[in-house]
Amino acid sequence: MSLFTDYYELTMCAAYYDNNNFEPATFDLFIRRLPENRNYFLFAGLEEALQYLQSIKFTTKHLVYLKKQGFQADFLDYLRNFRFTGEVWAVPEGTIVFPNEPLLRITAPIIEAQLIETFLLNTINLQTMIATKASRVVEAAQGKGVIEFGLRREPGIDAGVKVARSSYIAGCVGTSNVLAGLIFGIPVFGTMAHSFIMAYPREIDAFRAFSKTFPDKSTLLIDTYDDVSGAEKAAVVAKELAGEGFCLGGVRLDSGDLAVSSWKIREILDKHGLQGVKIFVSGDLDEYRVAELLEKNVPVDLFGVGTKMGTSADRPYLDGIYKLCETQNVDGSFSAIMKLSRDKNTLPGRKQVYRFQNREGFFEKDVIALVDEPSDGEAMLIKVVDRGELVYRLPSLEEIRGFAAKSLAQLPRKYRVLVDAPLYPVELSLKLQNLIEVLKRQIAEKESI
Amino acid sequence: MSLFTDYYELTMCAAYYDNNNFEPATFDLFIRRLPENRNYFLFAGLEEALQYLQSIKFTTKHLVYLKKQGFQADFLDYLRNFRFTGEVWAVPEGTIVFPNEPLLRITAPIIEAQLIETFLLNTINLQTMIATKASRVVEAAQGKGVIEFGLRREPGIDAGVKVARSSYIAGCVGTSNVLAGLIFGIPVFGTMAHSFIMAYPREIDAFRAFSKTFPDKSTLLIDTYDDVSGAEKAAVVAKELAGEGFCLGGVRLDSGDLAVSSWKIREILDKHGLQGVKIFVSGDLDEYRVAELLEKNVPVDLFGVGTKMGTSADRPYLDGIYKLCETQNVDGSFSAIMKLSRDKNTLPGRKQVYRFQNREGFFEKDVIALVDEPSDGEAMLIKVVDRGELVYRLPSLEEIRGFAAKSLAQLPRKYRVLVDAPLYPVELSLKLQNLIEVLKRQIAEKESI
Repeated sequence: MSLFTDYYELTMCAAYYDNNNFEPATFDLFIRRLPENRNYFLFAGLEEALQYLQSIKFTTKHLVYLKKQGFQADFLDYLRNFRFTGEVWAVPEGTIVFPNEPLLRITAPIIEAQLIETFLLNTINLQTMIATKASRVVEAAQGKGVIEFGLRREPGIDAGVKVARSSYIAGCVGTSNVLAGLIFGIPVFGTMAHSFIMAYPREIDAFRAFSKTFPDKSTLLIDTYDDVSGAEKAAVVAKELAGEGFCLGGVRLDSGDLAVSSWKIREILDKHGLQGVKIFVSGDLDEYRVAELLEKNVPVDLFGVGTKMGTSADRPYLDGIYKLCETQNVDGSFSAIMKLSRDKNTLPGRKQVYRFQNREGFFEKDVIALVDEPSDGEAMLIKVVDRGELVYRLPSLEEIRGFAAKSLAQLPRKYRVLVDAPLYPVELSLKLQNLIEVLKRQIAEKESI
Repeated sequence: MSLFTDYYELTMCAAYYDNNNFEPATFDLFIRRLPENRNYFLFAGLEEALQYLQSIKFTTKHLVYLKKQGFQADFLDYLRNFRFTGEVWAVPEGTIVFPNEPLLRITAPIIEAQLIETFLLNTINLQTMIATKASRVVEAAQGKGVIEFGLRREPGIDAGVKVARSSYIAGCVGTSNVLAGLIFGIPVFGTMAHSFIMAYPREIDAFRAFSKTFPDKSTLLIDTYDDVSGAEKAAVVAKELAGEGFCLGGVRLDSGDLAVSSWKIREILDKHGLQGVKIFVSGDLDEYRVAELLEKNVPVDLFGVGTKMGTSADRPYLDGIYKLCETQNVDGSFSAIMKLSRDKNTLPGRKQVYRFQNREGFFEKDVIALVDEPSDGEAMLIKVVDRGELVYRLPSLEEIRGFAAKSLAQLPRKYRVLVDAPLYPVELSLKLQNLIEVLKRQIAEKESI
């Protein structure tokens, strides 16, 4: 993965090397702003980021390629022995975070800190984007199960696996992705496609064929031809199964007006005494559609949510960035660094985020402060890597999922509504505000013509 | 990759196995509809699809996992010896295609044909989506170079690599992604980030440090503090380099009003006799922004396009689907299959797509027909896999890129405009239309209650 990087990371590193710039520098990874209809972020992706930092190295194949690109032999020798030796502070996966808050803070010789930028952004951006989106769908589902279902339209193999993981962290009950099941132990779900129904002469033949193999707790897809006639046939098969001591698990609707259809289907099932058979709906769902259905109080038990969650379709990227905030000078002193421009200021210096809770345990506000400032709030960033070594016990996926649920529950409800939520207060400490003013003046003096 | 699949593919296959359904079936992979502001698709992803079909197999680890999920021993034995033995017809990568046209047509024992669905869709959906999006950006750039730049916000590792490849097929001149450079030989580009500038006491120190390592043809990022003062300092460094026999390649602008800024910068550079120094712009670009800039005739030489192209941000998924269109009965006869529903009909039977060109070589219309129908058009689907073996020479990436350029040039300009393009005519043959009518009647008789 060492070449999974933007080319300019390598050219910058080569220039740093050539100019003997080996002093430590500190970078913040943070998200610049909230997209429309996002009120918080659910942080995910740390585990892979840390695995990357533990394992990054350049193979001979990589170095041969870079030599062809014109990099000098002494820099390539440096890369041959490259390993990450720095310090990393981070918020745990499953933490609720907000714009401008450092999510990872890296201090390392500047070449090392620079080289890792692209990979860290790529993995944090995707996983945090999906965890955030999925948490909204789960919130909308009001405790009914949500299954992640989007593999065929998720962007690539790696995304498919990460979407399953991030959605599970956010509270989905499972995924259709079998590989994610194998890798992470996430519960996998799925029954049949319309093609299965159509591969048999009659719909009921397909139901019977499937029930032969999976007699207990199966879900039958009933809308291939007509939802009502499909439900009637499912009821026939359910009674046949009951005669053998088995139980039909559910029926799935994947098209049409899901509200109208689910009411009709519930009635048919109940008429046949099949109150225990669940209704599972899918088809173009997202948090808005789920909320809309539940506002109508539809008799749906489970939601399969695919493409729109798995691609975060209404906002398929996050503005996660990685910015230099401090350099160390040759004499050992530190310089706080700030990027100043019309709309894109960054926060200078080495920082910590403090969170304040009210008496009921709800999050009240965050304060971004310099690391040496005292605070009564809870420090959000913890040290996870020291001198290149992991000093953090990676929590299990279940632990992360539990922590995410707890964090989401601690975020007052007004910030969790799907649209028009108020802004959660994130303040800058006075000391940080002062530093910003000082740097603004310095930059204006130094770089104007 | 065999477990990179939706769980329901496996449950369906288990049921087919259990019910002794081993007859061949034919599936079409096609895209249901054009998203808003897409007038065609540029097909990509076949190479990986074919590699997958050649290599899919189940390891002991996979089978142990599936056993735990409750699959029966005899089905697992079947999977242990699984390989794809079917026939595949496909359009070559770089082909211009339209909704409802089969892009891949797979005929294989139904278990095999079903099992491969998710992977094929995942890879074709992503790569075709990006190639299509990137072709629009390249079209908007009117012959000026476009570099794919989005790695840090592209959704995951696999997507990063595939976006670079698909964008290059579509006509981008290169990528920032070094791994894609290594794997595919795509030219890689990149210079420096704002952090590099800020890591030095003064902007000009950073320019000099970079130029020391890369004295010839470098690009300097000039907008860290102020674009005008940055350009003046770049001019100073350019003259220093000229004194040593080197040449500054270009300057990059990454923020602000790129039109206003590029005019100012061009003037400064020209004033210093630096007419040869190119202006490279980036920052939140897509086809619409590029077109807007070039309408103003801005003096820009090269565009760096990132997030919005690499995520296809205005439409981050394609409606690619995989549908059963024919089954073979136990007696050897074939049944054409059609999915009939309010808004989602599929096309039955084994089909070919014929393309008609006018005398000047421009594409005029396509006709979707049954395979045994004669046509004067050019057959678009070619046989790529026969009895499980590759019977197709995989073209090189440069060949695919050349073919894409030729195909795009053959598509009349009116279909290549960014918005409000007319619909390219795709007709159904009479025989196919008749088959659809017959099947509609049959389904209505058979499946109504």
